[in-house]
Amino acid sequence: MAVNLLAPADLLPVAGVSLGVASAAIKKPGRDDLLVMRFAPGTVAGGVFTQNAFAAAPVHLCRTRLASGAGRLRALLINSGNANAATGDGGAEDAATLTHALAAQLGCESAQVWPFSTGVIGVRLPVARMRDALPRALAAADPGHWAAAATAIMTTDTVPKGLSRRVETTRGPVTVTGIAKGVGMIYPNMATLLAVVATDAPMDADAVQALTREAADRSFNCVTVDSDTSTNDSFVIAATGAVGGAPFAEGSADALAVREAIFEVCETLAQAIARDGEGATRFVTIDVACARSRDEARQVAMSIANSPLVKTALFAGDANWGRLVMAIGKAGVEGLDPAGVDLRLDDVALLAGGQPHPDYTEAAGTAVLAQAAYTITVSLGRGDASIRCWTCDFSYDYVKINAEYRT
Amino acid sequence: MAVNLLAPADLLPVAGVSLGVASAAIKKPGRDDLLVMRFAPGTVAGGVFTQNAFAAAPVHLCRTRLASGAGRLRALLINSGNANAATGDGGAEDAATLTHALAAQLGCESAQVWPFSTGVIGVRLPVARMRDALPRALAAADPGHWAAAATAIMTTDTVPKGLSRRVETTRGPVTVTGIAKGVGMIYPNMATLLAVVATDAPMDADAVQALTREAADRSFNCVTVDSDTSTNDSFVIAATGAVGGAPFAEGSADALAVREAIFEVCETLAQAIARDGEGATRFVTIDVACARSRDEARQVAMSIANSPLVKTALFAGDANWGRLVMAIGKAGVEGLDPAGVDLRLDDVALLAGGQPHPDYTEAAGTAVLAQAAYTITVSLGRGDASIRCWTCDFSYDYVKINAEYRT
Repeated sequence: MAVNLLAPADLLPVAGVSLGVASAAIKKPGRDDLLVMRFAPGTVAGGVFTQNAFAAAPVHLCRTRLASGAGRLRALLINSGNANAATGDGGAEDAATLTHALAAQLGCESAQVWPFSTGVIGVRLPVARMRDALPRALAAADPGHWAAAATAIMTTDTVPKGLSRRVETTRGPVTVTGIAKGVGMIYPNMATLLAVVATDAPMDADAVQALTREAADRSFNCVTVDSDTSTNDSFVIAATGAVGGAPFAEGSADALAVREAIFEVCETLAQAIARDGEGATRFVTIDVACARSRDEARQVAMSIANSPLVKTALFAGDANWGRLVMAIGKAGVEGLDPAGVDLRLDDVALLAGGQPHPDYTEAAGTAVLAQAAYTITVSLGRGDASIRCWTCDFSYDYVKINAEYRT
Repeated sequence: MAVNLLAPADLLPVAGVSLGVASAAIKKPGRDDLLVMRFAPGTVAGGVFTQNAFAAAPVHLCRTRLASGAGRLRALLINSGNANAATGDGGAEDAATLTHALAAQLGCESAQVWPFSTGVIGVRLPVARMRDALPRALAAADPGHWAAAATAIMTTDTVPKGLSRRVETTRGPVTVTGIAKGVGMIYPNMATLLAVVATDAPMDADAVQALTREAADRSFNCVTVDSDTSTNDSFVIAATGAVGGAPFAEGSADALAVREAIFEVCETLAQAIARDGEGATRFVTIDVACARSRDEARQVAMSIANSPLVKTALFAGDANWGRLVMAIGKAGVEGLDPAGVDLRLDDVALLAGGQPHPDYTEAAGTAVLAQAAYTITVSLGRGDASIRCWTCDFSYDYVKINAEYRT
């Protein structure tokens, strides 16, 4: 039951990108679970990946190929239903085998084919079935298949996630389209489980890598569902350059317009992940201001967003704001002075200068929490850094979904 | 539904300690919610308290009095039903007022009366009703009332928690009796929500403070229910010295016997907190070995113990061991090499050298997880430090208890 989230209606093709899906019966038969995204020659891409020490086999391969191939990308090979994580040396071989097979069919170098996997951890991929599905996915490839792609990569997601933006530049319209999946094991620590954003803007490899890091920091690294960091988080921005010409000059109006469009797509996708968080009934924005650093602000926002006691109170719509105070206090901010802390629910003040606000009423607090979406605002009173993060509540269905995940 | 946990049957009196309970209708009428523990002159005590920046008013007062009074303790004033946290300057005044009143009735200094509170955050104490209850609690005080005390301090606990040990020393038998409460907002970061251990052994103030820290590190700091650190965590060891004489010589057989008895009481109380964790259906021990430091081992153990995805799988009895791998990997251990990691459920090997164990079967894993209590063992393969921690699973009832806590 996603919160205020509809399937994307109008994902725009990006010149230089085509997408094909096929069924390889990876976890269960009968659904399209394999996606090939083809990119035109000249495409450069940046990527950020999970910091989990048990990073999956495809993550290791992507990292190596990104580093060795100077960001040149010709295809992404993405599957749902199986994470190819904790699969040992055999899993590494499986990922390599499949990308070699796809590279051979595309006539490109293996280093230009990057694999993403998502699904159950600890089970080997059905390599033969996946290899057999590659020609079908390639035959189906079409620039208009973004919606099918967004659906193919879903696991426990209830709604496919995607967004397009078109901006005018001096070289004509530039398109940005992105898709993402992920609703559980979501506390990204570089990016979230599988997000791909493509643009036909021209970029160079270093710029797209820097942009990928910056976009992740503003979007996927600001969302949490359950505090659990996946083994497979992978986020790529690919720039085909199909609009032509050299990269836009740094700081130019064109470059800024494209950059803002990319940030908007990434932030909306990150929010969609929290809106569709496992069992979510509320979508909650957490603003933390007046921190000494952005990291400190994130620490406080995530301490609130990851607290099971806060999340169950949000589920109940119970204005038990003592739990918010507890979560701020446990965040580990060195030398935090409660006397500097303000706390609000939308416009309703709870704490001012660390003291209960005299005008607060339970009715006012409860009215905010009765909404499907609202904002918790914290001011730490010790600096000028801030952050905006997103999360969801913690319901019976979260337990149900995760207790029954493999059955 | 606590896991393998019964109410304590035989809590032994400790010479020099008497306990009295009374009803002050703090949250609801009709239950004994106020406890006075009296200690004989000469008693010294050590205390450790929450690291939450929003530490409650009584915690601040305890810290100050512990520091200024050289550990001399004549009474603890403990209430359930209200945490006196996030109550501002008024809350600090309330705590001081009540301890002044009790000190006056006992004829001791206020600095020798330490307050503990537990319950709802953000609500002022009913000071008048509590002051009125003090003479009743004092009149009821008796060395035999440990069980009533353990019950009076409960909040959402389903079972009172206490344990006694008696050890023989060259000066005759020494008794150690402890009680604790707490089943939610439990991720102690110095101690857990209200634990008191008393002994009639003689100790000096510095020794009892050092022992309190060490005992907390081995017991309450090794347990988590929900990753949320309370504003009120407080743990005290009080030594009345009633067996007579000077403190046992450091390292003597007597000192070691008392020390081991205190550790055993604390560890059993800490385990009881996890056994009675909110909604718990499983009691899980987590052993982490071959770490570079005890802190590193704790980091991995707590990453497993606090993971909602691990906890929901444990609730379901689902051998989805990929989630254990994920939790080890996300723990933030710098430079952890998966190739050094072994993982077991009781005697069933899951990973050896970072690779799936060839002999593992789903049936064997499921058989372990079908038990009410079992051990998860992780070896990091990079040092010789280890830790043992305890936790519980995450059930529908956890959500229910915390969504309906104030109703």
